[in-house]
Amino acid sequence: MKEKNFIQIIKNTLNSDYIGDDCANLEDLGIVITQDSLVEDVHFVTKYITPYELGYKSAMVNISDIAASGAKPAYLTVAISLPADCDEKFVEEFYRGMKSGAKEAKIVGGDITGADKIFISITAIGKTQGRKISSRKNAKPGQKVVVSGIHGSSAAGLNELLNAGKRIEDKFTKAHFMPEAQLEFSKKIAETINYDYAMMDTSDGLLDALSTIACESRVKISVDFSKIPYDKDIEKFTDWQNLVLYGGEDYGLVAVLEGKDTSGMIVIGEVKEGCGVEILNGNCCEILSRKDIEKKLYSHFGENHEN
Amino acid sequence: MKEKNFIQIIKNTLNSDYIGDDCANLEDLGIVITQDSLVEDVHFVTKYITPYELGYKSAMVNISDIAASGAKPAYLTVAISLPADCDEKFVEEFYRGMKSGAKEAKIVGGDITGADKIFISITAIGKTQGRKISSRKNAKPGQKVVVSGIHGSSAAGLNELLNAGKRIEDKFTKAHFMPEAQLEFSKKIAETINYDYAMMDTSDGLLDALSTIACESRVKISVDFSKIPYDKDIEKFTDWQNLVLYGGEDYGLVAVLEGKDTSGMIVIGEVKEGCGVEILNGNCCEILSRKDIEKKLYSHFGENHEN
Repeated sequence: MKEKNFIQIIKNTLNSDYIGDDCANLEDLGIVITQDSLVEDVHFVTKYITPYELGYKSAMVNISDIAASGAKPAYLTVAISLPADCDEKFVEEFYRGMKSGAKEAKIVGGDITGADKIFISITAIGKTQGRKISSRKNAKPGQKVVVSGIHGSSAAGLNELLNAGKRIEDKFTKAHFMPEAQLEFSKKIAETINYDYAMMDTSDGLLDALSTIACESRVKISVDFSKIPYDKDIEKFTDWQNLVLYGGEDYGLVAVLEGKDTSGMIVIGEVKEGCGVEILNGNCCEILSRKDIEKKLYSHFGENHEN
Repeated sequence: MKEKNFIQIIKNTLNSDYIGDDCANLEDLGIVITQDSLVEDVHFVTKYITPYELGYKSAMVNISDIAASGAKPAYLTVAISLPADCDEKFVEEFYRGMKSGAKEAKIVGGDITGADKIFISITAIGKTQGRKISSRKNAKPGQKVVVSGIHGSSAAGLNELLNAGKRIEDKFTKAHFMPEAQLEFSKKIAETINYDYAMMDTSDGLLDALSTIACESRVKISVDFSKIPYDKDIEKFTDWQNLVLYGGEDYGLVAVLEGKDTSGMIVIGEVKEGCGVEILNGNCCEILSRKDIEKKLYSHFGENHEN
């Protein structure tokens, strides 16, 4: 995983305290900021995704990062580089989709240039306005793990697509191309919790989020598979349990809170002393290190998803 | 100029008040924000620019946009997409350069992904902190046009490069690869002027800046060529006057102020009723519409510069 090495080099070169969570928390300004790119033939192929969906999803992945921080999405800037064959219709549909994916956040600027392939890079700003901002380092033994959203549907949609070589118009495809950021869940937690807590989105899979929080907080997270919310129809796919655990791009949220604060929420596990992630599944208890999980994420889905 | 059409479509689709200046002024947060991309083989070629210079210049072009707004550069986020053959050394040098180009602004986050070609997109945030923020719409008849920086050197460096097919190590090359944002000039104006004023950087050439301000403010700008600061050694180049007027990437600043506020500054012209730009050059007075200037910018330097 070359990019992980690069991130370490960047941290060393910049010697910055900010690099770590998806969002940087700029306390002096009362904002969080995040930037994410989508590259043609790495993160998407135009054969499958419509310009509207591409715009929607580009905005939404950044809105989801803001939701994971607990802040309120406020502004977006958008840089897009386009090949010569992208026409006015593409641009209009892309920006219509982006406006929809941005929800209440306003698109306030950006840049447009030429390129051989489509490059999209979006920056999102969230206002903290008295909300408590999360960090992956905050999970503590004894706390409970809660989730929002359902897991595995987006990866199931991607699987269908790659197997068929064309779009299958069903709920899994929709989950893949038009995911929803968990803004209500985020707001509820960030406005009510008054201690440091951990929260992260499941953009790279539920187990990626759980193991990252476990690793950054130096704890073990124990999860009961039967408690994880997923669409029952996913069981028709071979390997469906891996879709639920390791499939990315559902943009659910995982948070780690004191038990007293989890009423009405979906609790899937708890935090223990130790490290890594433990999955209870019927009579089986699988214990996975961060390295095991990275290997599984990579072997199931590759470093980058093509959709 | 296809990108100009696209910007109009984007404005129509988003129906946003913010799109216009390089920076969006987010008054509720006390910040301005800008985002700019650099694409391999469109804005640069790795044959000529070093990774350090590429990092430096990527940061600097965004710092210059913040300077043009009058705000104080505060934070940067950086998204970079890299082909598989970019190694650790490239990443380290690129970020070292970027840290240098960012000046006092802190690099607080971003994204790193794979791609076929290098794609860099940087977002910069400036704090307004009581400074007066510029807009291209603010020039008024009777006001004076002032500039900072020297003009044409960067384009001369690019010319040398393209003619020789290799780097010529001289002051023009340096101006092209390691330009300086005009932070002191920006600060002085933004901290002392107490009325709405216009300011813009010369990233796309001096006449691009002058004609954009003229067009957005619905005025005519009259400039005396003999007052424009440039390096005398540029006169060795054929077509040197066009380099001074139309050459991009010097990252100077142009501001339009009341005459009483220009003491100690380089005044190159004044604002009149009318539209377009008027260049006094010896006995000749050339009158250029925005369209004439766009055509000249395009024919001299193309829509995108390769450097």
